[in-house]
Amino acid sequence: MTFGHLQLVMNEASDPHRPRAQIVGTGLIGGSIGLALRAQGWHVTGRDRDPTAANRARELGALDAVGNDPNAELTFIATPVGAVASEVERALETTTGLVTDVGSVKAPMVPLMSNPRFVGGHPMAGSELEGVEGARADLFDGHAWVLTPVEGTHNEAFARIRTVVSSFGAEVVSIPPDRHDEMVAVVSHVPHLTAATLMRLADESAVEHLALLRLAAGGFRDMTRVAAGHPGIWPDICGENREAIVTQLSRLIEALSEIREIVAADDRHTLVKLLEAARAARLNLPTRFARPDELAEVRIPVRDRPGELARITTLATDLGVSIADIEIAHSAEGEEGVVILLVEQALAERFQGGLMANGYRPTLRTLE
Amino acid sequence: MTFGHLQLVMNEASDPHRPRAQIVGTGLIGGSIGLALRAQGWHVTGRDRDPTAANRARELGALDAVGNDPNAELTFIATPVGAVASEVERALETTTGLVTDVGSVKAPMVPLMSNPRFVGGHPMAGSELEGVEGARADLFDGHAWVLTPVEGTHNEAFARIRTVVSSFGAEVVSIPPDRHDEMVAVVSHVPHLTAATLMRLADESAVEHLALLRLAAGGFRDMTRVAAGHPGIWPDICGENREAIVTQLSRLIEALSEIREIVAADDRHTLVKLLEAARAARLNLPTRFARPDELAEVRIPVRDRPGELARITTLATDLGVSIADIEIAHSAEGEEGVVILLVEQALAERFQGGLMANGYRPTLRTLE
Repeated sequence: MTFGHLQLVMNEASDPHRPRAQIVGTGLIGGSIGLALRAQGWHVTGRDRDPTAANRARELGALDAVGNDPNAELTFIATPVGAVASEVERALETTTGLVTDVGSVKAPMVPLMSNPRFVGGHPMAGSELEGVEGARADLFDGHAWVLTPVEGTHNEAFARIRTVVSSFGAEVVSIPPDRHDEMVAVVSHVPHLTAATLMRLADESAVEHLALLRLAAGGFRDMTRVAAGHPGIWPDICGENREAIVTQLSRLIEALSEIREIVAADDRHTLVKLLEAARAARLNLPTRFARPDELAEVRIPVRDRPGELARITTLATDLGVSIADIEIAHSAEGEEGVVILLVEQALAERFQGGLMANGYRPTLRTLE
Repeated sequence: MTFGHLQLVMNEASDPHRPRAQIVGTGLIGGSIGLALRAQGWHVTGRDRDPTAANRARELGALDAVGNDPNAELTFIATPVGAVASEVERALETTTGLVTDVGSVKAPMVPLMSNPRFVGGHPMAGSELEGVEGARADLFDGHAWVLTPVEGTHNEAFARIRTVVSSFGAEVVSIPPDRHDEMVAVVSHVPHLTAATLMRLADESAVEHLALLRLAAGGFRDMTRVAAGHPGIWPDICGENREAIVTQLSRLIEALSEIREIVAADDRHTLVKLLEAARAARLNLPTRFARPDELAEVRIPVRDRPGELARITTLATDLGVSIADIEIAHSAEGEEGVVILLVEQALAERFQGGLMANGYRPTLRTLE
């Protein structure tokens, strides 16, 4: 009994079997990762360039300890985009564990991705709140979390990081880094700049007409909400993802010029057609990820070499297939292995077909 | 006792003292007006070009009766924009009462505003729900409701409509019709077209990259929410408010081109400056109207002629002064009157100054 009690205390304080993680940058995202990791039983050490932020994260239960953990088996880099690459390098040098990041632009990290211990990441969740005060263990629950495995990515590293991130309730989506950057320009960066621009134009008009902003109803408030966020992160994001943002801004400008022509010409038919297309797309926007009830197991024999899981999971993304779980079984001989995936049953055959078209020999088994 | 009971039944069914209103177009807005009017004790008759919609409005308690009411002392025209002008004319012909509308473009109604019984209006509230099923008695509570009185507007007509609309919990804002149309292009029409365009571009990108829409997080969802609305109302709105929409679209295109240059040049300083301006404006966006606790009474002697209340209330709007109540007291001689306004105390002196600068002789009294 006494021994049992002692063990319990040790478990909580310094169980040597508790997996150890490290977080660099303990703001909203880093703090939420800390809370989510600790809820899963991890020992979490963290730091921030602002020491009060790290101390506050500890007070709020997002960290066990403030500082560095050379024994961390997994490090999350959650600093602003401009500092991510150097912190990834530092973590790869000072630990022997895995490293991932949460930066919203992946291009600057591509050179580091040849390191088999690093996998780029980007959780697609946020909050209007800023800093660790807004952190929540369930911030990622039901949201997409992009991982950007590449040819050099070690399968075990990817599978491990994927499992941890999935344990936060996130849906992991594998996308190559360059395509990720294009995509976030479309669904995040350019919309953000547009929201700020709409808000600024309304404000400029309001200088002349004080009442204008009192007319701003729910739709305008919804559209400009993100413009209330802190601008500090945007120069880095725009700098790092310049090419994609400029390209997508050009598309938007062109499309708005087209709309202007349509309105000027009173071309009702085309206007309705465009708005109908937008409406259908908005109504089809996937809702929060829900884990499918019915799963199928796909077993894929693979050669045990880097990049296999990158290829397989990116293919799943391309085919719209959600992966609920990944396991890697190694054969005794060492050169061969089997990747075992749990996927939603409804799309399992589509996935099987895609794998076969890419030279794999998957087998499919329905789970009861 | 028996008589008392009988009287009660009569009160509910056909009290000749119940004020009578009429609603043309019993969708989301018309239905909500019906519910709000009935909650204030009005007898409400209504019709819709779709008879099932009018019957449904009655079932939902938004109407006492389906049809026309030649004895209506107030008619709300709540049809789509394209039908408003003809329905206003019809109501002015078939009743001797006052008429107002809820159309989101006022230019087409300007010729009718010379009729002293008609005052244009536009409640700045809506819902993602469509039709009478989404109607709520409190839809307008805390939101702005624009009235567009002009030189010819009869003071009593304006004051009466203003009082009714205020009784729904709305904050009435007086704006000249042309300025209203400019303003809604800025805060409603162009943002709506932009939301639809962002959604459409994302959808086009997603044809190539299936996973893109799974990356759409809260910000993108907020920005594109209005694009889910039914496109049917937009050709009329864009047709009627073409000039203002084209002008504001041009401003937006120009501003986005400017942002594109700034991003392309990696001009971090200017980018942060623009985003800071947008942020400050968003944080300053007035929240839902709350009736001020402390009111002051402003008494303004006026000549009893059309347009006085239009001038006075538009001036209040220009000065950012909320009017909580309006009363008109007539002198025995008939030619003179006194307009009595309740305004928020904090801005009462500013309002007094503005009135004096416009040739009025207001007196100010603080209410305990």
